[in-house]
Order: sequence, then C-alpha cells, then structure tokens
Amino acid sequence: MTDHRPDSSVSGTTLHALLADLFPICRSLTGEGVRKTLARIGDIIPLDLHEIPTGTEVFDWTIPKEWGIQDAYIEDGSGRRLVDFRENNLHVVGYSAPVDEWLTLDALQPHLHSLPEKPDAIPFLTSYYKESWGFCLTHRQRAALAGDRFHAVIKSELKDGSLTLAECLIPGETGDEIFLSTYICHPSMANNELSGPVVAAFIGQWLRSAPRRFTYRIAFVPETIGALAYLSLRIVRLKKNVIAGFVLSCLGDDRAHSMIASRRGNTLADRIASAVLATRPDPRRAYSFLARGSDERQYCSPGADLPMVVLCRSRFGDYPEYHTSLDNLDLVTPAGLEGGFRFVRDCIELAEQNFKPRATCTGEPQLGKRGLYHQLSTGFLADDIRTIKNVLVYADGETDLIEIARLIEASPLALLPVVARLRAAGLIEP
Amino acid sequence: MTDHRPDSSVSGTTLHALLADLFPICRSLTGEGVRKTLARIGDIIPLDLHEIPTGTEVFDWTIPKEWGIQDAYIEDGSGRRLVDFRENNLHVVGYSAPVDEWLTLDALQPHLHSLPEKPDAIPFLTSYYKESWGFCLTHRQRAALAGDRFHAVIKSELKDGSLTLAECLIPGETGDEIFLSTYICHPSMANNELSGPVVAAFIGQWLRSAPRRFTYRIAFVPETIGALAYLSLRIVRLKKNVIAGFVLSCLGDDRAHSMIASRRGNTLADRIASAVLATRPDPRRAYSFLARGSDERQYCSPGADLPMVVLCRSRFGDYPEYHTSLDNLDLVTPAGLEGGFRFVRDCIELAEQNFKPRATCTGEPQLGKRGLYHQLSTGFLADDIRTIKNVLVYADGETDLIEIARLIEASPLALLPVVARLRAAGLIEP
Amino acid sequence: MTDHRPDSSVSGTTLHALLADLFPICRSLTGEGVRKTLARIGDIIPLDLHEIPTGTEVFDWTIPKEWGIQDAYIEDGSGRRLVDFRENNLHVVGYSAPVDEWLTLDALQPHLHSLPEKPDAIPFLTSYYKESWGFCLTHRQRAALAGDRFHAVIKSELKDGSLTLAECLIPGETGDEIFLSTYICHPSMANNELSGPVVAAFIGQWLRSAPRRFTYRIAFVPETIGALAYLSLRIVRLKKNVIAGFVLSCLGDDRAHSMIASRRGNTLADRIASAVLATRPDPRRAYSFLARGSDERQYCSPGADLPMVVLCRSRFGDYPEYHTSLDNLDLVTPAGLEGGFRFVRDCIELAEQNFKPRATCTGEPQLGKRGLYHQLSTGFLADDIRTIKNVLVYADGETDLIEIARLIEASPLALLPVVARLRAAGLIEP
Repeated sequence: MTDHRPDSSVSGTTLHALLADLFPICRSLTGEGVRKTLARIGDIIPLDLHEIPTGTEVFDWTIPKEWGIQDAYIEDGSGRRLVDFRENNLHVVGYSAPVDEWLTLDALQPHLHSLPEKPDAIPFLTSYYKESWGFCLTHRQRAALAGDRFHAVIKSELKDGSLTLAECLIPGETGDEIFLSTYICHPSMANNELSGPVVAAFIGQWLRSAPRRFTYRIAFVPETIGALAYLSLRIVRLKKNVIAGFVLSCLGDDRAHSMIASRRGNTLADRIASAVLATRPDPRRAYSFLARGSDERQYCSPGADLPMVVLCRSRFGDYPEYHTSLDNLDLVTPAGLEGGFRFVRDCIELAEQNFKPRATCTGEPQLGKRGLYHQLSTGFLADDIRTIKNVLVYADGETDLIEIARLIEASPLALLPVVARLRAAGLIEP
Repeated sequence: MTDHRPDSSVSGTTLHALLADLFPICRSLTGEGVRKTLARIGDIIPLDLHEIPTGTEVFDWTIPKEWGIQDAYIEDGSGRRLVDFRENNLHVVGYSAPVDEWLTLDALQPHLHSLPEKPDAIPFLTSYYKESWGFCLTHRQRAALAGDRFHAVIKSELKDGSLTLAECLIPGETGDEIFLSTYICHPSMANNELSGPVVAAFIGQWLRSAPRRFTYRIAFVPETIGALAYLSLRIVRLKKNVIAGFVLSCLGDDRAHSMIASRRGNTLADRIASAVLATRPDPRRAYSFLARGSDERQYCSPGADLPMVVLCRSRFGDYPEYHTSLDNLDLVTPAGLEGGFRFVRDCIELAEQNFKPRATCTGEPQLGKRGLYHQLSTGFLADDIRTIKNVLVYADGETDLIEIARLIEASPLALLPVVARLRAAGLIEP
Repeated sequence: MTDHRPDSSVSGTTLHALLADLFPICRSLTGEGVRKTLARIGDIIPLDLHEIPTGTEVFDWTIPKEWGIQDAYIEDGSGRRLVDFRENNLHVVGYSAPVDEWLTLDALQPHLHSLPEKPDAIPFLTSYYKESWGFCLTHRQRAALAGDRFHAVIKSELKDGSLTLAECLIPGETGDEIFLSTYICHPSMANNELSGPVVAAFIGQWLRSAPRRFTYRIAFVPETIGALAYLSLRIVRLKKNVIAGFVLSCLGDDRAHSMIASRRGNTLADRIASAVLATRPDPRRAYSFLARGSDERQYCSPGADLPMVVLCRSRFGDYPEYHTSLDNLDLVTPAGLEGGFRFVRDCIELAEQNFKPRATCTGEPQLGKRGLYHQLSTGFLADDIRTIKNVLVYADGETDLIEIARLIEASPLALLPVVARLRAAGLIEP
C-alpha cells in the first residue's frame, strides 16, 4: 500500500528544500517571522490568513503584544561581538524586551542560558508572558566569557499588533472533516517545528490533487495560544464536523515513528494511527496521552474534546537535539521527511477507504467461478485466498476494515487491494 | 461428571465398529456412497433424507452433477494394474471425468498427484467444480512408474442427479434448538470424516434415550455445498431457534482435544465448549475462528450468523495423516472415539443443565440445620462447603452456572452435583 | 495526604489502651461479654443498642439461646486445675453446655482440642448450633495429662435471652451512607476481633469531630448471625442509601495491608480501597471475593447486594496466630493499630473528597497569570505542573478523581491538595 500511488508521492528532496527555505526565518508567537513563513507555504497551498489583535481574549488567555527583533548581541569592551543574533536566532530568548546596558559578568550571568551537559548546543528559550530579556549560548561560549564589562544589546520591540493564523480548507464529498494542525512559532528549529508545516503543506497539495471523500482542514498556528485562538474561531464547526484529527509535529528525523493517543484513546484517529504505525519499521512507539506536549493539549481538552492524535517520527522531548541548535538541517533528512509525509498520507488513505463492508451472499461465495480460486482443493488455502475469505466472513455490516484487520491479524492497509477486488466482484458492499 | 451416568455411555468398541463398516464406502459430494452411508447411520437413529437436484441454486452456488464411479486404474503395456481404485478409493481424484487413454509417462504426469515428503501416503484430492481427471498415488508408486505407454482408465459418470442430505430432529421440552452438524463426503478417511458422523449418530441415540430440555437437530451433509444447501432449506428456523451449535469433525484420534471458536467468539456454544475443554487432559487447544475449515465457514458467515463452534480431537490440518490414506482405521481408535463422544456429550449435558440460579434467602443460609455443615466451626471450611457457599453467593439470578464456575475458579461440570443438592434443599431456584 | 490533618489522628497508644481494656472480657455470640464490650465502646462514641430475643427468626436463621459462663476447668484427682478458664477464656469451647463429670483420659479426649503443629497455642473453637461441650488447650498441656480420672466442670448456662447489636449513626450533609461494620463475638483475641471494634470506635469519634458530606453508619455485631440480624433490621435503608461499605477486621498487626473485593468487584468501595491500598507500603494484598470470610459473606450476598469490601492488615486466616491464643496483645501493636486506623480513615477521606470535576475553561488555562507556573518555558514541566495539567485535562465532568488518578498514574490521595488549589483558583468545579 505504502507506495502503490507513485503519483501521490512527494520526494524527500522536495520536502527538504522547502524546509531549508524556511529555516533561517526568525519565527516567534507573533510577528513578521510567522507571516514570512506563511507566505512561503502559500506557494504550495492556498491559505486563508487570520490576524487576531493584541489584547483579544481567547478563552483563559489574552493575545500578547507583537514581538519584533532587529538585532541582539553581547560585546566586550573592545566592541567584539561574543554572542550574535545574526549568527543564530536562538541566541536571544524569545520575546526578550529591548536592552542596551553595560554589565559586569556577575550581573550578566542571570541573563545567560546554556546547557553544561551539551556544551556545543545553544538552548531554545522563550519568555512570552513575563517581560524579561536574556541570551542563550553554548556552554563553551559562556565558559570563555572574560573581561570587566559586557555590552548587552537587544534591539526588539513589543507593541500592539496581532497574532497570525492560517488555514486551508479542502472540500470533499461529505462535510465530515479530517483536521490537521501544525505549529509555526519556533525560530530556526528543523524537526520540532518545520518538519510539521512542510509535511502539512505537501499533504495539502496532495489532497487537492484528486477528489476526496472527506473535507480536510489544515491549520498553521503558533503553538498553544495560536491553537486556542483557532479553536475559539472554529469551535462550533470543529466539534460538529471533525471525525478524526492529527497534530503534525517532529516529522523529519529518520530514527523512529511515533504516535500519541488522544485523551479518550479509542477514537477513529487513534485506531487509524495505531494501525498505520504498526506497518512502519521498528523502532516505533505508541505513547499514551500522558506523553502529550503540543496542541493536542488544547484540542483534546474537555471543552473541545476533538478526536486528535499526534503523529511524529521521534517525539518531541525524546531525542537529544530537542529544543537546541542541534535540531537543525542535519538532523532532518530527506528520507526522514519523506517517511513523515508517508505516515500522514497513509493515515489519510486509511481514513478515506475505511468502511463497514457487508457480504452480499449468505455463506461463502463460490470463488472458483469468479477466478478467485484454484482448481484442485488440497484442503488448505493460499494466503491470499485465506485473506479474501477472512474479509468476507467478517463483512457483517457492523465491523469496519480497521477492526476486521485486527480480528484477522492483518494490516488494514494490506486489505485495501483485497477489498477493492471484492467490491469489484460484487461480493461486498458498504 | 464425565462418567457419572454409565447408562449414557457408548463404548469405543461400538463406535469403532460402525466406523469400520462405513470406511470402505466411496463417498463424494454426491452419489451412491453418500446414500449407502446414510442408510447405515439410519440403523442407529431415524433420518429424514433430502435430495437436492443437480442445477438447484443454493445461495452463490449450484448443485453439481452427480458423480458415479465403477472403476479406475492405470495399466502398463502388459495390462498390469499399477494404480487401482479397487485397492483404495483415494487413488482417483474425486469427481474425475471418465477417461480411457494410452499416454506416455510425460503426458500422464500432470494427471498424477503424490506427496514427496510422505512417500507412503496416497493424498486425497478432488476437483468438484472444474472438469478434469487424475490419479493419486504414493510417491514410491510414482517413482517406480517405468515404460513407454500407460493406459489411464476411469469408468465414472457425471450426470444430472441430486445431492443427498439427512437430518434427525429430536424434540425437547422447549423449541430452543441445539444444532449438530457433521459431513459425509470424503471417501475412505477415518478421522477427518467418519469420526464425525459416527459420534453424531450415537449422540443422537443417547439424546433419544431420555427426555431433553432442548430440541436437537443433527445434520449429515456433504461439506460446504451440502451445508449451504441445508442452510438454504432451514435458515429461517435455524436463525430463530438455535441457541448453540457444534460442528463435529475429527473426533476419533487419541492425541488432543480442541475447539474452534465461533465468529463472534463469545456465544453460549463458545462458553460451553471452553468450559468443557478445560476439563479434558492435556494437550488441549482452543483455536480462534481464524483456524476454521469445515462447515462453520458457512454456519457462522454473516448471512447465517449461527452460534456454532467446532469440536475436535486433533484439528483437521494439524495432524500429519490429514487428507491422506494414513487417516485410516489405525489412526482412529476406540478410546479416541469414546473421548470424542464424551466431549460432545458433556457439552450437551452442560447446555441442558445450565441456568441462572437465584438464592432463595438473604444472606448465607444455615447449612448446619440442613446437614450441609459440620459441627465445630474451626474458622475455615472444607472444599465442598466452600463450593456450596460460593455457588450460593453468586446465585443472583443474573449469572449462569458457566459464569459462576468461572468466577469461583471451578469447572461448571463439577458444580452440577452441588447445584442439584442446593436445588433439592430449596436453597436455589431458577 | 496520609498525615496532613494532625488533629484527625489518634495515636496507636490510645488505640492499644482501649484494646487492652477490652481484651480480658469473655465475649461470645450472645451474653454479658458482648454487653460489657459495647458499654466500654460507648465511652468513645454514642451507641444505640438492640436486643434481639432468642427464637427470633432472622432470614434462614434463628437467634440462639443466650450463653453465660461463670467458670470452667479440668482438675485431676487431687483437685489441681490442669486447664482453667480463669487463666484464658479460650480454654472452653464457645457455647459449651454445662458439665460436671469425672472421666477417664480416654473418655475425656473427644472433648479436648489442641494443635499439634502449634504446641504452645490454645485454639479457639465454638459450637454455636449443636449442643456439646469441650476444652481447648495447648498441645503441650494435653500431652502432659496423666492420671486415672479427670473432673471436667463447665459452669455455663444456655437460656432464653437475646443477641445484642449496636449501631452509631452520624448524619452528614446528604443521606447517602457509608457503612462500617465490625464484629464483637470472639473472646480474648486481639487482631481477629478487637482491632476492628477499636478502630471503628475511634473512626466514629473522628467522624463526629467535623461536618461530613456523607452519613456514616457503624455497626458492632456478633459475626454472621449478628450481621444477618442487623441486615434484617435495616435492609431497606441499607439497600437504598449505602454507596460504599467497609467490613473492619484484623486491623491491628503490623505486617501487611489487605483488602477483599466485594462480590461485584467494581463498586465505589472497591475503587476507593484499591486506590488507598496502593499507597500503603509493601507487602499489600488485594484479594478477590473468593477470599472472603467475615460479614461481607452476608452483606454482599445476592439478597443484600451491598457494595462492601473488607479492610485488613494481615487478613484472617493468613497469619499463623489466627484463631489461637497467640492472637494477643503482643501481636497487635500501637503502630499496627494506628496503621489500621489510617487505612480506614484514608478510605473515608477519599470517599468524602471524590467527585467528578469539570474544567471551567476550554483548553488549558493560563497557569502563569495565577502563579501556578514558572517564568521561562523550557519546554518540559515540573512534576507538580504536570499533575495540575493532567487533572485539568481529564476534568470532563464524567470522570471521578479516582479514575482520573488511575488514568494519570497517580494516587488519588496525592491529587487532593492539587484539586483543592484548582477549585480555589476557580479552574474546576463539581
């Protein structure tokens, strides 16, 4: 199943090229970085943009000021830049207030963040809801700081503006929706950020390439506050229409496939993701909802209660480069992204093709007269005949393909061609 | 429990004697072999016969022509019979068309069937639905074939006729039915054929020996097409009345006890068979419905949806002699058949005696004043008292004996005498 | 949680002192021993006494005659007391009829009971429902018996009188009841008797010290017949009001914590006891209802069907001193009783504080603005924040705290302070 539609595939190279384009942009919860990112994604699929003004109340939250940044650095007395935002946008703590001060090393230290256990990594930190400023740097850089005075400069601004969201709605034969959501608020981070929007964009392109049974909704939102803002905008429609949803996160490395169950744990989305995950090579991991960490926190909350699971390669927090400068263009590979794309695509294919088949005749049909059997009855059947008979015998109109696959110890993806033959032969119907 | 009714037992010798009578008859899907077999079984229990004409449509199938065979052989140039139907009726492929040809060995080979891995066994093969002809022989016979020309002769005929079924209906106190089905279409095969009809016949005789709570229906049918024909004849009544059913197959060897679950897996028949199976000595095997292979394929199909399980000693396909000439009168033993008879009989006993008991008093009854206790309360109870108390405490009118037995970690068969004492004492009632 | 209310604790010393007061009293099913015991317990909590006359029918049973005993002994020919009730009231078989006979050792033997495998222990035996007499003694005592004649004297009487019950009803905000029952019919036995009433009495005192959500009913009854008599007196109210119940038994040793599930196994009482048991140190044991042995036999019987579990330290029958003179004031310790008290108290606390929380806002609330968060988002959360978020995300108004705790792999007792903070912050409501 995985590769039986060559025209529907996007190469890992194509995915990685888009990711490389987006990587240098300095995204945050709000601001020009998000808008530039959405503009580039808009080259792949059409997006509807929404700007939510600063101060808007969104459930328990308030849209914060919009953050902009031109430059940030620490210089020594001789004007040499020791830490420089232009080299890596992780060097500044996200949402840092402007500063322009000379400080001693002792006074500077509380504003510095590094990882002693990963001395070559710049950590990623933010301070969205409490005004402060700070720099992130490698532990080696920090250890080398020497001198009497340091000039800390952050040329940022926090002003009334707006938070930017985007959605792409792809109508299908029915109004039942499959909802994909991914986030666009981290600066230069490849796996735990851009792999999601990149896969989502090309999934959208693929979905638009042919008629679909379901309607698809793809949201690109800043994490947490953006997801809440999107929820507040669309909650009635989401609660009414969404039959399954997927949060796309960390889909670009090449070391694992993972899912995080929904809060309820037994929704259609869970059943689909579990069945597809089981077809991926090891290692693969099915996490409970306790391992959640992205926007499923909002979408699955009691007030929203959407049937959403998370699809990942290596899950956020479970790989050593997570939330550091090591989560970069080397970590995310073309093969990793292509596997992430296929993981999502196969989940969607299974959703599209899942139904509750009903056998059209009582007892086993005579397969021989339909060319589905072989001449001599030797008592035991070839594997494919056995699969055909197993699908038929469970086709009681009450049991969907995912459950039939579980009962007959097969993958539902592997059943799809068999089911197609049986429908063509008139032996099952929806 | 197993042997507490000596008058209800049939000796293995009696069972084996009937099987030996039936063994030489050349049965097939249709024809005189089936009729002769049913005539002999009719000596044990009364049978109603049904002839379904060739060409009759039965669900997705059509009753085939009736097959008859007088003789079949391969001779060499000197007229010596190298393969001879009169020695073993497995030598001819079932439903072979007539032939009378001289062929070279090369031309003959595609019509020959042997088992290199079992060089002394004649395989059993049929070609019911595609006209062809062939011979089965041991691999040693085949290897010894030498010469220029071989005379292949099959004196068979395929003509309009009928397929023969039989049923025995044994009315009980209620119209709820227990349905037994077994098959009668294999030539000289002892375990995977005759053990079923032989056990079924004597179970019928035993059922008729005393009044029963349920009505019993025993069907003797050619496998697959015969089961479908019987289903088509009785489907309304079967769907309305059958509370549990058992396919009787391979009940004659002495190496295991087995069951195959129904499609739904949790019917009364499943619960009964599981509980009885658990009382048999090791090895015993409870297979899922995926291991099905006999007429449960039809009876459990969505259109029929009967609550039927298969009862076996060694399951078809799971013993090395299966579908060869080694499945013979040596493989099936008197002890094996007697065990098969008892397995079926105990399932029926449990069905007859199962009910949802309700304790007649609140709290524990005073067992002492009823002679069900001992004088000195030493705090802990003898096993039988504990069983009495356990049955009473779960006798809530909602839970049947099979479930009570599961809850109290006992065999429901072992509970039957306890339950009888409690009913006699007025402590439980249905 | 266990100790967060210092004012609600009773010291083990206090518990043990009451137990020591009650220990010497010779209790039995009926008689003055029971009344003296209840009078002393009445110093701790107010009791309503009920006297059920001899001959009263109680379900399947009849209230027996009242037993009184003044003295009992075996003397030798020289008038030396070899076995003396005044030394240990276990020496006489409970409910022994009066006797005053000279017997040979051979004639005496059938009236003697000792434990060869525990030669220093006097066994505890009764003969409530069959008139007889006997003495219990250590096996060493028995082996040392020598002489021609022995004078067996039991100064007892069996007369029309009554069986004595007591109950304490503590009204709460609602009429829903939590029912505690313990037994008062064993003579000098510390764990398998007095630990229960002692803990029950001080639990009652503690319950009365503050307003409670539920109404509490504490019954002190002779085992079996007393429980049945109490059931017959209150069955309508119990079946209507009791939401959870606990039989208190063997709560005084210091070697384990145990519970015995109710008949149904999944009641509120089971869920509470399981959750609290899991917070006790090892060893701890959750027994099925098959391990029952005290008044849960009556309360959980189908006619009553109350949701009751048994709370124990070491379960009756599972410790070597059970039902012997070794079950004494050494076996039961202040620490053991205090642990028993806390076990029961924590079950009650959990019942009182359990509810189905509902989150008041859609999505996660902003914890930061409420002082429930920390400044820098480092991506992963401290344990307490994670617990807060886990409680909130499962607070769907359908799931109670016990179930939420199970889902988030926490103890519900540990959640109570978190839940209190969330209620105070207005983030959840019932």
